[in-house]
Amino acid sequence: MALKLYGAPMSTCTARVLVSLHEKDLDFELIPVDLFAGEHKQPPFVSKNPFGLIPVLEDGDLTLFESRAIASYVAEKFKETGTDLIRHQDLKEAALVRVWIEVESQQYNPAISPIVYQHFVAPMQGKSPDQTIIDANVEKLGRVLDIYEAKLSKSKYLAGDFYSLADLSHLPYTYYLMKTPCASLINERPRVKAWWEDISSRPAFKKVAGSMTFGGK
Amino acid sequence: MALKLYGAPMSTCTARVLVSLHEKDLDFELIPVDLFAGEHKQPPFVSKNPFGLIPVLEDGDLTLFESRAIASYVAEKFKETGTDLIRHQDLKEAALVRVWIEVESQQYNPAISPIVYQHFVAPMQGKSPDQTIIDANVEKLGRVLDIYEAKLSKSKYLAGDFYSLADLSHLPYTYYLMKTPCASLINERPRVKAWWEDISSRPAFKKVAGSMTFGGK
Ligand SMILES: N[C@@H](CCC(=O)N[C@@H](CS)C(=O)NCC(=O)O)C(=O)O
Ligand SMILES: N[C@@H](CCC(=O)N[C@@H](CS)C(=O)NCC(=O)O)C(=O)O
Repeated sequence: MALKLYGAPMSTCTARVLVSLHEKDLDFELIPVDLFAGEHKQPPFVSKNPFGLIPVLEDGDLTLFESRAIASYVAEKFKETGTDLIRHQDLKEAALVRVWIEVESQQYNPAISPIVYQHFVAPMQGKSPDQTIIDANVEKLGRVLDIYEAKLSKSKYLAGDFYSLADLSHLPYTYYLMKTPCASLINERPRVKAWWEDISSRPAFKKVAGSMTFGGK
Repeated sequence: MALKLYGAPMSTCTARVLVSLHEKDLDFELIPVDLFAGEHKQPPFVSKNPFGLIPVLEDGDLTLFESRAIASYVAEKFKETGTDLIRHQDLKEAALVRVWIEVESQQYNPAISPIVYQHFVAPMQGKSPDQTIIDANVEKLGRVLDIYEAKLSKSKYLAGDFYSLADLSHLPYTYYLMKTPCASLINERPRVKAWWEDISSRPAFKKVAGSMTFGGK
């Protein structure tokens, strides 16, 4: 039975899962959820994810939500297929992958998401971007990226000299950031820039990026 | 070689790891980091965690940070010892544990941490708690706990009928919440209350809770 992913390709959390499915060369069905119509806040969707958020993955009778948990499941269940995203044969490397997945979740995401939100979502709601929020988070993200710059001078990718779920998890938000003036945060840091160019040119991401349009941008 | 944990017992993130070590009955050395002296923002600590945050775990030549990543590593490396925190013999149960670990990280923690911060940290800094921040997050946490109440009417613990890292991860912040008037958020919801009483009475947590004092409370 094919995997079913409920979501929307423009959503960063859906994109995180989509990229992991493509890295694994898996067959799956993408079932669109209409956020504008509020489909995710009503039955039957809320019986799949009570928090009323996309994405949701169904694998037979198993229903999962939270994009990082879903991507981990895909990486674990299909560890022998396609790209090894979790270094399943080496406990130490696997632990470092998990550290940097958490860094994305706890340090990177809280800083980058308000910047992207202000640039893309606020205008769709008829508001102008709040420059105070942008400035505060640009400073925060800059501090995180300084640490990435230092790390990426010691290893090619975040968790070591191998591409992993930790790098992958950064793709969706950074892709939108690169369409804003704040792209300079990445471009000003040579190691971060090289890393971004490397990970964003992977075929699995290119398949997803094509459908990531947000408010026409 | 014994595991070395750098941290402070009153810190919620350190406590998360301490509880996992106790659930596994492991020998480890707790090396105190003096946050008040800013020890975590200087060498040698920042060579262990460039983000300058506790906790850090050293296991031989492996250095890990981010409490949820460390707790996962402990649960995975010592999966045959003590309590099975990750349901390592069942891929579906393991996936559900990961979903609810992410729910704690993405939904519960962002709502509960500002409430605890306002009640305990602000006063230590000579500020009075900001009631607007408390109110907004009480509402947010209440919505999350409504979903927990429904979930806990279907299974005894968050990920299923078994205690796991998902439940464990909630202990430190909830312990502090229970010392504030916002404890009613838990006490008002019968299933959540029973779950809290169950998980907080586990011996592994009791060993840690004794040292969790924050500003004398
Ligand atoms: N932590 C969750 C976040 C999910 C989330 O916020 N999804 C967004 C799309 S990226 C959504 O459903 N938004 C609709 C809404 O908030 O109403 C995950 O990683 O899956
Ligand atoms: N996401 C990190 C957060 C670590 C964190 O914020 N640690 C706090 C103690 S709970 C700390 O080191 N605070 C000192 C500071 O922010 O200067 C984790 O889970 O380990």
